[in-house]
Amino acid sequence: MDPVKLSKKLGGKIEIRSKVKLTSGNLKFLYTPGVAEVSRAIAKDNKLSHKLTIRKNTIAVVSDGSAVLGLGNIGPEAALPVMEGKALLFKELGNVDAFPIVLATQNTEEIIEIVKNLEPTFGGINLEDISAPRCFEIEDRLKKEMNIPVMHDDQHATAVVILAGLINALKVVKKDIKKIRIIISGVGAAGIATAKLLLKYGAKNIIMVDSCGTIYEKRSNMNPVKTGIAKVTNLEKIEGGVREALRGADVFVGVSAPNILTEEDIKCMSKDAIVFAMANPVPEIMPERAKSGGARIVATGRSDFANQINNVLVFPGIFRGALDNSIKEITDAHKIKAAEAIAGLIKKPTSGRIIPKALDKRVAKAVSRVFKK
Amino acid sequence: MDPVKLSKKLGGKIEIRSKVKLTSGNLKFLYTPGVAEVSRAIAKDNKLSHKLTIRKNTIAVVSDGSAVLGLGNIGPEAALPVMEGKALLFKELGNVDAFPIVLATQNTEEIIEIVKNLEPTFGGINLEDISAPRCFEIEDRLKKEMNIPVMHDDQHATAVVILAGLINALKVVKKDIKKIRIIISGVGAAGIATAKLLLKYGAKNIIMVDSCGTIYEKRSNMNPVKTGIAKVTNLEKIEGGVREALRGADVFVGVSAPNILTEEDIKCMSKDAIVFAMANPVPEIMPERAKSGGARIVATGRSDFANQINNVLVFPGIFRGALDNSIKEITDAHKIKAAEAIAGLIKKPTSGRIIPKALDKRVAKAVSRVFKK
Repeated sequence: MDPVKLSKKLGGKIEIRSKVKLTSGNLKFLYTPGVAEVSRAIAKDNKLSHKLTIRKNTIAVVSDGSAVLGLGNIGPEAALPVMEGKALLFKELGNVDAFPIVLATQNTEEIIEIVKNLEPTFGGINLEDISAPRCFEIEDRLKKEMNIPVMHDDQHATAVVILAGLINALKVVKKDIKKIRIIISGVGAAGIATAKLLLKYGAKNIIMVDSCGTIYEKRSNMNPVKTGIAKVTNLEKIEGGVREALRGADVFVGVSAPNILTEEDIKCMSKDAIVFAMANPVPEIMPERAKSGGARIVATGRSDFANQINNVLVFPGIFRGALDNSIKEITDAHKIKAAEAIAGLIKKPTSGRIIPKALDKRVAKAVSRVFKK
Repeated sequence: MDPVKLSKKLGGKIEIRSKVKLTSGNLKFLYTPGVAEVSRAIAKDNKLSHKLTIRKNTIAVVSDGSAVLGLGNIGPEAALPVMEGKALLFKELGNVDAFPIVLATQNTEEIIEIVKNLEPTFGGINLEDISAPRCFEIEDRLKKEMNIPVMHDDQHATAVVILAGLINALKVVKKDIKKIRIIISGVGAAGIATAKLLLKYGAKNIIMVDSCGTIYEKRSNMNPVKTGIAKVTNLEKIEGGVREALRGADVFVGVSAPNILTEEDIKCMSKDAIVFAMANPVPEIMPERAKSGGARIVATGRSDFANQINNVLVFPGIFRGALDNSIKEITDAHKIKAAEAIAGLIKKPTSGRIIPKALDKRVAKAVSRVFKK
């Protein structure tokens, strides 16, 4: 199957459908004059829009096309097929109606204003493929200034699924998250959110590495987000590249670039090393090489290897739960419970199976239950 | 059927559906990594987004909730059920995927900026239920500043369907549009657009009437749009209310308020008078009273009387045709041809049948053909 030909044939992967067939008998209930009664009811009590309209089950998947997959800043039109795919996954896995919105602006303030003004249409906002560090400010501001749940998927869905995998991987190797050293390669949206969530979950020793080397306080060439994370990671201020950081480390989490690690690098890690090499489509190190370097557990973002760590395990259930329970904010507590719920679906984790399959139907349900009040 | 209960049961009248069933086999084509090929193709040539994504068949139905049905400024949340109904009609009658967007702002400049920034998502913009005179500036600016078709439905779909009805009504009474006097009651979005289209079609003698009386040059209490239309209507500068204007008139078109006319008013019109009393749900005069006042042809906006003049006959076909033929601007020529196409579906018009039924499946096809290049 050629994805371009498929897209041409389909003309978009999703469509809008009526929930009821239009007849000359029901026209007056579905549209004028009957619809005026629904409008009047909502005009009296705006909150009813969450029960009587598409807001009950509809979110926006919003992108400016500035950081799409591994393709970079390819613009909104080129981002649209990805957002359609996301919308398709939301529906198929979480029964959430998701509509893609790609924006012609990459100005932070303009994006914030537009998304705020879209609030009356939607029950939630899933931000997608917006470049760091702009994505942090956009998400923070929208969470504060909107009354519906907002989540930047690349940050939090990724962080949750990594934590889920790590919970089970640590069970296999019998290590305690409080006592291990974790290296995170990549200090963009996913890396920052993962570090923060692992710290919340109890990790004490995380070292982050970007393309200039390890992050530590007062390093040069840092944006405000990196300066912030430097205050709570790499407290020993280890300098150098990813190789230096990896010496004696227990866990490597890669959300960065293809082929940056060698077998030799893995050999320098501690016993029972855990390697999550999630750059897509080419990981930081191929699984067979990580294994031959001594890694006990290897995961990637790909479906053709064992242990696929894919955020599709997270976002459908998050919004399913948030919509069903009228949740206004997706908190760290929700995210940690979601990771535990996903990990809990694997009753006896092994090195070859730390996480459910990407399309496992149980997952969205398990995640959504986390939001029950 | 209670519309509020129905909405509660449905939780919105439309949903997002995947066009293909997700399987572990096609995930990699519908989403990562395969979707990257579609994104790369569009990044090379943005115009491909009109072929490879939902833009091919998707428009936005945009409202700020400032002039909803006859309910007035009830706000965006309360407008949403109406926009959903519109989206449903677009799909059922024109097979156009239409997504409702209701905005939290009623500021003209902000609305223009937001809609412009939504352009990469959509193949067209249907503006809806935005109050006059703001609707004129918003539509004019968006038409100039966007590269996809933009139409304010309340103006143009209404004008087209009125012209369609009038074409057949004039055939029945054997009068020439160039020689008749037409009174238009209501100088909002629909009234202004109707006057302009009838003038384009050849009408010479139109008198517009608002709640302060007839419109004429240098009348007090006029907005710039009324000042503009005063230059090309009521050239005899007839003063007074709708009663005075109606004396000797051939056609009354009401897009105004319930029960403003009496039998006596109709009696003052010329022989074979045509009365389109389209205020909703209560017309300017009830059909039986207009008839007993001497009107030869009476139409309303309601489905429970003969001759329902409903803009649902227009908008699905307009956007079906615009999308299929990559039309960037919906012109007056398109609108006139659309009206003629609708009128042409009634082979032998009679006083009881000047216009096709609201859900006549032939109509959208006939209208869409107008756009063939």
